[in-house]
Amino acid sequence: MPLASARQLTIRDARPEDWAAIWPFFRAIVAARETYAYDPELTEAEARALWMIGPPGRTVVATDDEVVLGTANMYANRPGPGSHVASASFMVDPNRARRGVGRALGEHMIEWARSSGFRAIQFNAVVETNEGAVALWRSLGFEVLATVPEAFEHPRHGYVGLLIMHRFL
Amino acid sequence: MPLASARQLTIRDARPEDWAAIWPFFRAIVAARETYAYDPELTEAEARALWMIGPPGRTVVATDDEVVLGTANMYANRPGPGSHVASASFMVDPNRARRGVGRALGEHMIEWARSSGFRAIQFNAVVETNEGAVALWRSLGFEVLATVPEAFEHPRHGYVGLLIMHRFL
Repeated sequence: MPLASARQLTIRDARPEDWAAIWPFFRAIVAARETYAYDPELTEAEARALWMIGPPGRTVVATDDEVVLGTANMYANRPGPGSHVASASFMVDPNRARRGVGRALGEHMIEWARSSGFRAIQFNAVVETNEGAVALWRSLGFEVLATVPEAFEHPRHGYVGLLIMHRFL
Repeated sequence: MPLASARQLTIRDARPEDWAAIWPFFRAIVAARETYAYDPELTEAEARALWMIGPPGRTVVATDDEVVLGTANMYANRPGPGSHVASASFMVDPNRARRGVGRALGEHMIEWARSSGFRAIQFNAVVETNEGAVALWRSLGFEVLATVPEAFEHPRHGYVGLLIMHRFL
């Protein structure tokens, strides 16, 4: 019988009712303007449509005893002749972050992309000052193809670079 | 009085009725799968919505005596903290191509981006085998930040790279 303290991180498909748990930290992360080039004026309906994508893409949540700790969505980076390269977006609730949520979501996404038949994964816009994310993706086999200079306006650091990160599958 | 042969290339805002002239070559270019990572199954309505963008973006046509020779659209590459970088897409009718249409559209777009207050221009997906386009953008001051390897499936060349090109304004 497991101890109550042996908490289990679960990653599963997001359900429509998970949005209520995602929206508060989605809104906070976008409003902070530190990690996402999303419009801070997005309405909740727009944000939901942006994040809760359906097939052939997928949205998942990382939960701990059904508390949502983070979320990711995953999709083809481009249609048509570019549709063999996957991409994804990740958010972890800053108020519930614990070690390994981002990594577990990243590993899950890589497996999804591989099992879905994609040949590679490309992240288009990793903010260079988001050092935790950059280190995580490197540790999961991604390399920096380029830094687009001054492509992101950070509220404290000013214009900083956006990294294009890539790995083959 | 100008000679009839002194043909004048004009670039102006696209009007709704210009779509009828754009769609045939848009469809042919996308169906060829050589230069655009667009879905070849796009319906005409989807293609029109994709291409004929409104403010704050802009769609233009290059015309010669009101015959549409090519078109471009231009927009912020990303919203929010990324909205100071512009991007654009260009198509020239292969059946009406003449020297300078692509260049005139490119120069026009650069001026639009500069006068609109953007700080840089990023092209996200220039197919590396589209040598004319790569040479044109280089001649207009763009540099290749990276080639995303094998990111585009070309019908004759197989998996080829997608160039990320950039210039400051």
